This record gives sequence, structure tokens and C-alpha cells, in this order.
Amino acid sequence: MKIIIIGGVAGGATAAARLRRLDESADIVLVERGPYISFANCGLPYHISGAIPERNKLLVTSEAGFEARYHVDVRSRTEAISIDRAAKTVILRNLDSGEETVERYDRLLLSPGAEVLKPPIPGITSPRIFTLRNIPDLDRIMASLAESKPRRAVVIGGGYIGLEVAENFHERGLFTTVVEGAPHVLAPFDDEMAAIVHAHMRDKQIELHLDDKVEHFEDRPDHTIVFLASGKRIQADIVVLAIGVRPEVKLARDAGLDLGTIGGIKVDEHLTTSDPDIFAVGDAIEVMNKVSGRMALIPLAGPANRQARIVADNMLSATQKDYKSYGGTLGTAILKVFDLAAACTGLNETAVKALGIPYRASITHSGSHASYYPGSQQISLKLVYGLDGTILGAQAVGIDGADKRIDVIATAIRAGLKVTDLTELELAYAPPFGSAKDPVNIAGYVAENVLNGSHEIIGWRELRDLLAENPASVQLVDVRTPEEFSIRTLPGARNIELDHLRERLGELDPEKPLIIFCQVGLRGYLAYRILKQAGFKDVRNLTGGFKTYAWATE
Amino acid sequence: MKIIIIGGVAGGATAAARLRRLDESADIVLVERGPYISFANCGLPYHISGAIPERNKLLVTSEAGFEARYHVDVRSRTEAISIDRAAKTVILRNLDSGEETVERYDRLLLSPGAEVLKPPIPGITSPRIFTLRNIPDLDRIMASLAESKPRRAVVIGGGYIGLEVAENFHERGLFTTVVEGAPHVLAPFDDEMAAIVHAHMRDKQIELHLDDKVEHFEDRPDHTIVFLASGKRIQADIVVLAIGVRPEVKLARDAGLDLGTIGGIKVDEHLTTSDPDIFAVGDAIEVMNKVSGRMALIPLAGPANRQARIVADNMLSATQKDYKSYGGTLGTAILKVFDLAAACTGLNETAVKALGIPYRASITHSGSHASYYPGSQQISLKLVYGLDGTILGAQAVGIDGADKRIDVIATAIRAGLKVTDLTELELAYAPPFGSAKDPVNIAGYVAENVLNGSHEIIGWRELRDLLAENPASVQLVDVRTPEEFSIRTLPGARNIELDHLRERLGELDPEKPLIIFCQVGLRGYLAYRILKQAGFKDVRNLTGGFKTYAWATE
Ligand SMILES: Cc1cc2nc3c(=O)[nH]c(=O)nc-3n(C[C@H](O)[C@H](O)[C@H](O)COP(=O)(O)OP(=O)(O)OC[C@H]3O[C@@H](n4cnc5c(N)ncnc54)[C@H](O)[C@@H]3O)c2cc1C
Ligand SMILES: Cc1cc2nc3c(=O)[nH]c(=O)nc-3n(C[C@H](O)[C@H](O)[C@H](O)COP(=O)(O)OP(=O)(O)OC[C@H]3O[C@@H](n4cnc5c(N)ncnc54)[C@H](O)[C@@H]3O)c2cc1C
Ligand SMILES: CC(C)(COP(=O)(O)OP(=O)(O)OC[C@H]1O[C@@H](n2cnc3c(N)ncnc32)[C@H](O)[C@@H]1OP(=O)(O)O)[C@@H](O)C(=O)NCCC(=O)NCCS
Ligand SMILES: CC(C)(COP(=O)(O)OP(=O)(O)OC[C@H]1O[C@@H](n2cnc3c(N)ncnc32)[C@H](O)[C@@H]1OP(=O)(O)O)[C@@H](O)C(=O)NCCC(=O)NCCS
Repeated sequence: MKIIIIGGVAGGATAAARLRRLDESADIVLVERGPYISFANCGLPYHISGAIPERNKLLVTSEAGFEARYHVDVRSRTEAISIDRAAKTVILRNLDSGEETVERYDRLLLSPGAEVLKPPIPGITSPRIFTLRNIPDLDRIMASLAESKPRRAVVIGGGYIGLEVAENFHERGLFTTVVEGAPHVLAPFDDEMAAIVHAHMRDKQIELHLDDKVEHFEDRPDHTIVFLASGKRIQADIVVLAIGVRPEVKLARDAGLDLGTIGGIKVDEHLTTSDPDIFAVGDAIEVMNKVSGRMALIPLAGPANRQARIVADNMLSATQKDYKSYGGTLGTAILKVFDLAAACTGLNETAVKALGIPYRASITHSGSHASYYPGSQQISLKLVYGLDGTILGAQAVGIDGADKRIDVIATAIRAGLKVTDLTELELAYAPPFGSAKDPVNIAGYVAENVLNGSHEIIGWRELRDLLAENPASVQLVDVRTPEEFSIRTLPGARNIELDHLRERLGELDPEKPLIIFCQVGLRGYLAYRILKQAGFKDVRNLTGGFKTYAWATE
Repeated sequence: MKIIIIGGVAGGATAAARLRRLDESADIVLVERGPYISFANCGLPYHISGAIPERNKLLVTSEAGFEARYHVDVRSRTEAISIDRAAKTVILRNLDSGEETVERYDRLLLSPGAEVLKPPIPGITSPRIFTLRNIPDLDRIMASLAESKPRRAVVIGGGYIGLEVAENFHERGLFTTVVEGAPHVLAPFDDEMAAIVHAHMRDKQIELHLDDKVEHFEDRPDHTIVFLASGKRIQADIVVLAIGVRPEVKLARDAGLDLGTIGGIKVDEHLTTSDPDIFAVGDAIEVMNKVSGRMALIPLAGPANRQARIVADNMLSATQKDYKSYGGTLGTAILKVFDLAAACTGLNETAVKALGIPYRASITHSGSHASYYPGSQQISLKLVYGLDGTILGAQAVGIDGADKRIDVIATAIRAGLKVTDLTELELAYAPPFGSAKDPVNIAGYVAENVLNGSHEIIGWRELRDLLAENPASVQLVDVRTPEEFSIRTLPGARNIELDHLRERLGELDPEKPLIIFCQVGLRGYLAYRILKQAGFKDVRNLTGGFKTYAWATE
């Protein structure tokens, strides 16, 4: 069996290793355009600041090491330039010598990854503008940092990679600006969750230009000016473009393989392309989003690695009926932004709304561990769920423990658990690690109450609009303490502290809609329970409390 | 509706709060023998060292605060001394005045917790011997520490509470010894996993006496001598007895309520006792272990809290058919031991073996996050599973991220996922938080391979016995590097480095049983794959590698 793998990093190298473990006799050729196979793409940004001090650490396996261990014929600096499906051959070009060879395959795997988007913005070819996808890209950035000692960096794009690059520029001592075309960074997050990240980045002195686009770049002798659509101009000594990636499909398209409708290589659940002897994985393919059932591009390393393990089994399988299936991707992801972690899984509210799925969304803020044990940090957790309790997605932002909660919820989604099941999860508790009621349990409680009608909530956006359009139509009550109320509250709110609400019910009109809020939502819920049982008709509690409202509207 | 709750802490206070949220009009009496309701039992040990510096922090809610918020009639320093089920009354004794009152109930909740075991060991009444269950116990310990400035502490019992107390004595500066009757601390863990904890505690200069029992205590003028069965004597200035707890069942038994077969109050899945108007939760009850299906005593705060929320709903439910069910307990638990966390869920291997369930167990050691990103710490993860892939239990020990992996696996068990599903979990990955193949995925891979016969393993114990009894019957091969081999290996092992194995196959006898090992198990697996495909008949790889073997046998 002769196997050619195109792309030698996350998907390709993993598949090669698994293929060898399964079959000592297969003839495996691993083709990589770049100088290195098996490098740590995800670690690249951290070398900029020196958080990962040694460049070598980014080279997970060397070519020689990989050959020795796996007896794979590794061809780096070699580009696959075309596939002849009828002849079952690939033309490989050695990028050093220019020499071209024709290599036969029985089965072919495409793991070519994605390419960085570089739209034709005037001035984009400036030598001060970089992208970051691989080691040579990193080397270019490092060389520029060493040579021209830039002081001001501009990162275009507020996605995962953009924010990682921005953080690492900042940690290196550069004054750093992020330009993002959307109203908030991190598209997989909803705005009020991304707002926590905005606040944190601004605290760290990162300059953010949101809802603004680059119109053109202009090079000056010793710097570049970034012109934004808003009319703003930013001086930059170095620019990194990180506005996203697009599947590398040229080879597949030229070979006549089917592409999907959103720009990736089309594969079936067995990761087979439209040619039964050609398989594809990783950033280059379209996958099914497990929650929406729609096709999606989810360029992440975890899925690439898992697809590679499945595809290796299928490539060696004699009959299609033994093929293993890839069950789709949830899009679980995480980002470190300075001291914060922002993690998510499944769909966000914006996506759910766009799909027209009836849903509810609630926000809680809980301690990462027992509040009485030192070091507890708040986790803001948003849960989006269907009316039947199906968990559609979750987002968590916090200094500690956000990763854990999203991993638990991702596991729950994968298993088809409902929000009610979250209330019953038995998670490891001791004061340094969690709470007897874990943040995930609490999120489950709140969702369960929302769905069974024992807790009616209003979101910050709806409340904001209501207060802007018709504030007189509701009674707005802040149930926090007078001290909290005196520091800051919502315009038009009156203060009735929760612990005195029962005595002061007479001050409120039971027939007029009532909106209550507290700091995070818990006291508001307790107030809600009192008011509803006292006969108040129309009561709603602000989900996520004043905290979320303030973040979202600032 | 008149409700009396006996026990005002984890189960009792939580139930009281939920009852009030559900029903503003219920008449709720919360009875607590001790001076405080709603305190943080789990935080008590950390006040000893000052990790939780303020005693007040341990009082989660005050009596007045609880009354104001929940309009519950709180009676602390009040003991329920008997229940008259026919009359539906409880006799309450005010422990300050001695006065007794008779209180009527419609429904009664028992959440009396557990009492510390204090066997009649000679000398156990010494004033230098303490237990730790509540605030007064803590106050006594703190007073003794302040007054007699002890320098040597002895903790009897190596369970969760014993080890927490030991750590906190040590952190306070006392030379601390732990005496444990079993061969290893932490009964929910298997010996090779507990061995990691032993090594860490010894590193921290905690003295451990395992497999040894206290025979008697003898008070001297300025210290106490602890006499062990082994003949050892330990001088102690302060002793804490933490050998376990037993359900508080006196009230229930005297009232003629059914007890279970292992010493707890018997309840059905609705948390109803044998009297339909009396309910019980928490440490006092027997629960079903969700994995084994057997009754168990699992005295943990998470279950108590969750049971309390369910029981509150049931107590207010007009008809039994609307009752909610408690689905049983997994026994998910965690302990901080200095820098380590030791977490577990489900059953350990010892328990599975005792139940006679056919099973496999494998051990992996993976980084808490990408190895190239600074701060990655090793997590040792043991997975125990049935032959059909059912996850029976897991244990994780490590400096970082053990809690997260156990929470994910606990969620998977709860959802009925199999080990194969663990391979597909999509967990949040960025270098500071995990790996593209998370430790949980890796544990799933290994288990899947073991079950489908593509990876045959041997456990450290079987290998130890085999090497002791009949070393000549096997070829023992260390596939690590010559450097690793030269530092330390197993007796009788020969060294063939993995990367040269294919060339050196001729040095091995394909007909004779072969046992291979490496440091953690990965290279051994790769060697296994090469050897089996080269026609070697009987090959097994040491699960957990030399690392686990060394820990377990030291
Ligand atoms: C800076 C950065 C940070 C990231 N951080 C994270 C993170 O924290 N978490 C996460 O989950 N993911 C992260 N990712 C994404 C992750 O690296 C990718 O999802 C993953 O590498 C995709 O694997 P792949 O095999 O599809 O593509 P790649 O790993 O990119 O490998 C594709 C390879 O194919 C080669 N190739 C393409 N065409 C040809 C050809 N015709 N001939 C020969 N070779 C060819 C390319 O040179 C490339 O090296 C990050 C990516 C980057 C760039
Ligand atoms: C030091 C320590 C550390 C712990 N650490 C952890 C941990 O890290 N993680 C974890 O999950 N669990 C931990 N636990 C266990 C956890 O605290 C218990 O599982 C939980 O509190 C059980 O709740 P409960 O309501 O059943 O009992 P409790 O919370 O103990 O409450 C029972 C109360 O009932 C009262 N009572 C009993 N009988 C009567 C009566 N006749 N009349 C009036 N009152 C009565 C008692 O005074 C007691 O206050 C720890 C426990 C201790 C002691
Ligand atoms: C303090 C104590 C009385 C609180 O009990 P509780 O009210 O049930 O628990 P919480 O304060 O976490 O509140 C949970 C409730 O608030 C709701 N809630 C929590 N956060 C919310 C938010 N942000 N928005 C809306 N509702 C929220 C939940 O839905 C839940 O209500 P429900 O049960 O009616 O669904 C009780 O936990 C206790 O006594 N603890 C100390 C003793 C103990 O547990 N010891 C062992 C561990 S150390
Ligand atoms: C380095 C690389 C080639 C390794 O691929 P790999 O061999 O599939 O992965 P691992 O080294 O984690 O090994 C996993 C295998 O070892 C086995 N294994 C792991 N730990 C084990 C243990 N302790 N005992 C026994 N077996 C073990 C697993 O079962 C699995 O084998 P299987 O797939 O046959 O079941 C590949 O991951 C790579 O190139 N990575 C860098 C690129 C990248 O991923 N970038 C994106 C993220 S930065």
C-alpha cells in the first residue's frame, strides 16, 4: 500500500504516525511545502514575547526523528503541485532544486491546512506588514523585531490569533493596537461576553478600534500609517494581519475534487473526498457543526488531530463498510488574553438567533472555587439552550477555571445531555477547586428555572432598548444594598433591598410590569420568587445582573 | 405547610433556602444542634494554617442573615431529641436553657450529617486528642495551638480530612506525622496512584506510617505518646483523629425509621424514608453508587447539596407521582495535597475487582498543557473500564489540571459515554490550557486500543510478581534511550531503544513472551506495534511505564 500525505503538520503528521502504527509495511510519503513538519502552529505567537523562549521548542518532531521513529519518507520543502486522479499520481516539486517528480499513490491524504486571508487593500504589500501561519512567518517577524526595534504594533483582526499576537507584542514591550471590523472581538462569542475581554485588554493598555476597517496602508520612511474607515490613522512600526484564514483548496479544485458550498474541500462522514481514494482532513475541509447540523469551517488543531486518527484507519480499511465516521465538530475553543481565559463550545446566541432556533440564554457569574478559600475568581458563564433543554452552546470568561467549565459542557453537549442534567453533574469539589454547587450546576439551575417558568428573565439588550424607548412602561427595581445602589445603578431604578422586599411590597404596583436586577442575578431571582408569589403579574429579572449590563453597554 | 428541618448546614440550609424560594407561605423551622448554621465544613482545615485567615469567612451565612433573607425560623443550639411519627411532632431541646418544646410538622427533613468515628482505643480521651467536624471542634484545636504551641502533630487517618489537616499543621510549622491503617492513604484511590501522593508528602517532610494502627495513647506531662501496632512510638503534642465518619442515625433509628444495611438511613430514589412524611439527605443516608448499583455511604458536600434541592421539591409536591428522583452518586472527589491534586470519580480498580466485574485498567501520564508552553505539569490518569467500554472509574493525580480531567470523565460517566467516546471529546485547546490531544483523549485512545486488542498491556503488580517468581520466563526490554536505561531500569531488562528496534529485531526471540516498557507507556506502545507486526507472538507493554512501576514499588 502506497500512501501519500500532503501537508506535514497537525493533520498530516498525526495521520502518518497512526498509519505506521497500524501498518508496518505501508509505504508512506509525507510531503510538506515548508521547511518543517510537525511544528507547533499554536505556539507561534508565544515566541514573539519570549513566553516560549526557544524557537526549537516549536519544532515538535524533527524530520530525522520522525523518519527514525515512524519510517516515513519525509519530503519537506516539497510542494505537491498537481494530482492526476486517473493515473493516481501526484507531481511533487522540490522547492530547493526545482526538480519535479511523479509519485504514485494507492491512497492520498490531503491535509494542506488554510491560507491567511490577505485582501487587496492598498498598501498591503508593505514590508512592515506580516502574517503568522508557520515558522518562516515567525522568523520574518522575529527578524523585523530584532532589526527595526519597532515600538508601535498594529494587529488587524480581533480573532484568536490576532489577540494572541497582540498580547505577545504587548508583553514584549510594544504599544499595541488592535483593529477589528466587527463591533466586538472574538466572533464565536456574543457581544456582552466579548465585552469582558475588551475591558481586560484596555486595562492592559491595548488600544482597541472596534467596528472599524482598514482602508489603506501608507509607508513612510520609518513607519507605516494605517488608515481606518472611521477616518482614524494609526502609526505602526510593525503590522500583523490576522483577519482569518481560508481553506487551501487549490490542489483539490485543480484535481476536480468536489468543494463544498462555503469554500472548503467536501468530504463525507468518513473523510473521503469525491474521489474514493483521496481523503482530506483539517483546516482545508468543511465539517458538520454538530449543534446546527450545518456545514462549517472550523480551523482548529483538536479536530484536525482527531480527524487524522480516524482517516488513517479508513485509509487502511479494505472495505468501506468498516470505515469509521467523524461525528462533526462543536467548535470548542479557548483563548488566553493576558490574565483571562475566554472559552466557548457549540453555538453562540447570535448564531442560534440567525438559524431561527427558538432558544433561551442565561448568564451567571460564579466563583471559580469556594469564595472563602483564597484566590477565588469570578467566571462569567453564558448558556444558550433550546426550549426542550438541548444545550446549544456555552461561553465562559474568567481568570481561573473557565476552561474546565467549557470542557464539562462540551462533554455534555457531545453526550446529548440537557440543561437539567447539568444540575445533576457530580463534579470534583474541595474548596481550592470548586464549589459544592459548581458554576456548571448553577448554570443548569438557572436554565432549568427559566425553562419551567419559575424564573422569568430579561437580557441586557432588551432592557437597554426598553429603557431607551419607553422607560415609563416598567417599574425598575434595584434589589442590591443601598451602598451598592449609591455607587452606581441603572437610570430610573429605585432601590428596595432584597432583605426588606417582603415588608416593602406595598411600594410597588402589582399590575405594572416590574423589572428587577441585582449585581449578578441571584438576589434578583430571590426577589422574583417573592414578588411572583405575592401576586405581581409581570416580573422579570435581569440575567447576568448589573455586572453584565455594565460590561455590555460601556 | 409546616416543615421542620433537622441539621442546618449543607443539606439542611440548602433545602431551607430552596423550600422558601418555592413556597413563600410555608412555615419552615431549621433546627441545628451546634452554634452555627450554614458554615463551611470543607474550609475548616484551612483555618489551622491560616490559609483561610479569618474564622468569620467560614460562616457562610449568619443566622440573622438567613432569617432576613429566607424568613426561616432558625433554632441553633437546639437539638432534636425525638420524633413522634404518629403525632407528627419533634421534641426540641434548647441546649442553653435545657428547655424542651414540642414542634408539630407536616413534613420533616433529616439532614443530621455524620459523626466522627472515635473507637475505644485506650487513652483516646486525652485532652491532646481532637476531631474536626464543625466550628466548635476547630475552635478547640485553634485554642490548643495558641495555648500549648505544639511542635509535633500526629494525624490518625489518611483520608481526605486527615491529609488536609496534616497539610495545614505542616504549613503552620508543626512537624507532622500521618498514621494510616491501610497500606496506602486515600481509600478511593488504587495503590499506585496513592503512591504519588505518598512520595509528594514525604518530599514535603510529612512522616507517613502506613499499614500500621494505633494501639493506645499515653499522656505524659508535656506530650502524648502514640503506640502503633508495629511497635513504633510517636511523640505528639497534638493529635487529630480522622479515621472516618458514620451516619448520624440515632434520631431516625429511635423513631423506628428503616436503616439500610451499611449503617445509613434508608431512603428511596425520592429521598423519602420509610415514613412518607419524613425525608432525609446528606451524609446520614445510604445512596446508590451509580456505577456499581450498590448502596454506599458517600459523605460529600456536592451530593448533599444536590439531594437537598431535589428533596425540597418533593417535600412540597402534593402527589408522589410528581416526585423528582435522585439518580445516585458517583463519588467524584478531590483533594489538594500541598502542590498536588488527587481527584477521582466512579470506582477504583480495587472496588471493581472486589465486585467481580470483568475490567481493564490503563494508566497514562500526559502534560496538563502543551509541553512547549511553559508550566506544563504531568497528570497521571488511570482509567478503569468494562470490557464493553463502559467507563467504571478514573483517578487523576497532578499539580495542574487533574480536576478538569476528572470533571470531564465524571460528566462522561453520568452520560453513559464509553471509553471510545472519550477519544472524540472536543475539549478546549490552546497551548496554555491543554493539548490538541487532551489527556482525556489519550486515555480514551489507550483504552480503545486495549479493548480492541491492538495494544496488550501488563500492570505493574503483575509484572512485579512475574519478575519475582519467574523472571526467566520472559524477555524484558526497556525501549527507552541508553541514557535513561543507564540511570535506572528494571532488574533483568535489556535495552533496545525504540528508534533502533526495527533493525535489532533479530536480537529477540519471537516465540518467547516479551514484556516491553518505556518511561510512561507511549514508546512501549509503539514498540508493541512494531513487534506484533514483525510476528512476535506474546508481547505486552507495561501500562503507565517505568514511572508508575517505580512509584508503586518504592
Ligand atoms: C498562529 C496560530 C495559532 C493557532 N492556535 C491554535 C490554538 O490555540 N488552538 C487550536 O485548536 N488551533 C490553533 N491554530 C490552528 C491549528 O494550528 C490548525 O487548525 C491546524 O494546524 C490544522 O491542521 P492541518 O493539518 O489542517 O493544517 P496545518 O497544520 O496548517 O498543516 C498544513 C500544511 O500543509 C502544507 N501544505 C499546504 N499545501 C501544500 C502542498 N500543495 N504541498 C505540500 N505541502 C502543502 C502547509 O505548508 C502546511 O504546513 C493556530 C494556528 C496558527 C497559525
Ligand atoms: C473538615 C471537613 C472537610 C470536608 N471537606 C469536604 C470537601 O472538600 N469536599 C466535600 O465534598 N465534602 C467535604 N466534607 C464533607 C461535607 O462537609 C459533608 O458531606 C456535608 O456537610 C454533609 O452535609 P449534611 O447536611 O449531611 O451534614 P452537615 O453539613 O454535617 O450538617 C449536619 C448538621 O446537623 C446537625 N445535627 C445532627 N443531629 C442533630 C440533631 N439531632 N438535632 C439538631 N441538629 C443536629 C449537626 O450539628 C450538623 O451541623 C468535609 C467535611 C469536614 C468535616
Ligand atoms: C448558603 C446556602 C444556604 C445557599 O443555598 P442555596 O440558596 O441553595 O444556594 P446558592 O446561594 O448557590 O443559590 C442557588 C440558587 O440561586 C439561583 N442562582 C444562582 N445564581 C444565580 C444567578 N446568577 N441568577 C439567577 N439565579 C441564580 C439558582 O438557580 C439556585 O436556585 P434554585 O435552587 O431555586 O434553582 C447553602 O449552600 C449553605 O448553607 N452552604 C454552606 C454549607 C455547606 O454547603 N457546606 C458544605 C460545603 S463547604
Ligand atoms: C507529534 C505528532 C506526530 C504525534 O502524533 P501521534 O503519534 O498521533 O500523537 P501522540 O504522540 O500523542 O501519540 C498518540 C498515540 O500514542 C498512544 N499513547 C499515548 N500515550 C500513551 C501511553 N501512555 N501508553 C500507551 N500508548 C500511549 C495513543 O494510543 C496514540 O496511539 P493511537 O492513535 O494508535 O491510538 C503529531 O501530533 C504532530 O505533528 N503534532 C504537531 C503539530 C500539531 O498538532 N500542531 C497543532 C497543535 S500545536
